[in-house]
Amino acid sequence: MEQPSGRTMTPGTATPRLSPGGSGRRPGHSVTREQIARAAREQFAAGGYDRVTMRSIAAQAGVDAALVAYFFGSKRELFDEVTVLSFDSAALRAQLLDGDSRDVGERLARCLIEALDEAGRRQRILAIIRTAGVEADTARMIRDKFTTGVLEPIVSQLGAGQAPLRAVLVMSQILGIAVARHVVGLEDLTSASQDELVAAFAPTLQRYLVGNIS
Amino acid sequence: MEQPSGRTMTPGTATPRLSPGGSGRRPGHSVTREQIARAAREQFAAGGYDRVTMRSIAAQAGVDAALVAYFFGSKRELFDEVTVLSFDSAALRAQLLDGDSRDVGERLARCLIEALDEAGRRQRILAIIRTAGVEADTARMIRDKFTTGVLEPIVSQLGAGQAPLRAVLVMSQILGIAVARHVVGLEDLTSASQDELVAAFAPTLQRYLVGNIS
Repeated sequence: MEQPSGRTMTPGTATPRLSPGGSGRRPGHSVTREQIARAAREQFAAGGYDRVTMRSIAAQAGVDAALVAYFFGSKRELFDEVTVLSFDSAALRAQLLDGDSRDVGERLARCLIEALDEAGRRQRILAIIRTAGVEADTARMIRDKFTTGVLEPIVSQLGAGQAPLRAVLVMSQILGIAVARHVVGLEDLTSASQDELVAAFAPTLQRYLVGNIS
Repeated sequence: MEQPSGRTMTPGTATPRLSPGGSGRRPGHSVTREQIARAAREQFAAGGYDRVTMRSIAAQAGVDAALVAYFFGSKRELFDEVTVLSFDSAALRAQLLDGDSRDVGERLARCLIEALDEAGRRQRILAIIRTAGVEADTARMIRDKFTTGVLEPIVSQLGAGQAPLRAVLVMSQILGIAVARHVVGLEDLTSASQDELVAAFAPTLQRYLVGNIS
C-alpha cells in the first residue's frame, strides 16, 4: 500500500492488500499503523474512552475504519496497545531508590512531572486515568502496576512501615497532579516550571513515603 | 398518579396526568421525582456522564423514560440539577477560616473526608469530577466554584502569598483523594478511619495553604 500523504486513501481500498507483520511488509504499513496509534492515543487522552470510536480515530488518521480494525482489532485492544506504559517496574523502583532516602520524594516528583511534560507519556497516563473511571480493569491495572507494583515495594524497602497505606497516599497525590493539571485544567499547575512543581510536591511525597503520617 | 411501589408503573401512562410544581400537586409526584433524582445521581457518580442515559435512569427508578424527560428536560439539565452542590461559598470560607490558622489544613481535610463519607455528597462530587473529564463546562465549574471561589480567597485571607498557585496545589490533593478512593478504588484509602485520613492529609493541605512551597 502506497500512502504518502496519510489522508488521501480512498475508504475501503486498502485492507485486502495489507500484510502487516509479514516478511514482505513495506515501509508504508508501519507509518500508517503509527499514524493510527498516534491519533488513538491523542483521542483517548483528550476525550476519555467512551467518546472515542474506531471511526473517529480513522477520520483523524485519514484512513478507513476497517483499516483501524485490521491493524488493532477491537477498541479495547487498540486502547490497551496504544496506552501501554512500557516501563520496567524493577528498573523504576531501582531508579527511585538510588540515592539518599531523604530525596526519594524529590526523585519521584521529578519523574512524574517529566513524564507529564512529554506528550507521548502524558497521553498514555491521561488515557489510563480517564478510562479508569469507566473500565474496572483499567482501574485495577493502575492499582496492580503502580500502587502495588512500584510504590508499595519502595515504601517497604525504605522501611517506614504501613507500606500499603503510604503507597495509596502517594498515589492520591500523583493522581491529583495529573487530574488537576490535565483533566480539570488548572492553569497555574500547567504554567509553573518543573522546578516549582517539584519543590511544591516533593515534600508531600517524601512525607507519605517515609515521614510522619499519623 | 398513584405509584406506591415505584417500580410497577406501566410505561407511558403517567406523563399526561402530571402537573409538577402546580398547586394541585399530589405527594406521589415529589416521591417519583426524588426517586428519579436519586437514581440519576447514583448513575452519574458510578459510571460517568457518557454511560448514563435517560433510559438507564428510568429503568433504575422504575418509570418510563418520558417521565424523566418530563421532570428534568435534557440529560444535561438533569445532570446539572441532581449534582448541584448547594453550599454557600462565603459560609464555607468562613467555616474554614474560623479558628487557629495553624489548623486550617485540618479543618479542610475533615470537611472533605466527611463529605466523601456521606453518600449524597460523595455522589455529587464524584459525578462532577468524572464529568469534568468529558464536559468542559463542568471542569470550568470546578475551577470557578472551588479553586477560584473558595480556595484562592482563603489563601489570600491567610496572607501567605502566591494565592493562585497555592489554591491549585490544594485542589490537586483534594481531587487526588476523591479519584484515588472512589474512581481508581484504592481500598486502603477507603478502609482507613476519618481520623487517620485527616492526620495523613491535613499537613499537606496546611503546607499548600500557608507553608513553605518553594
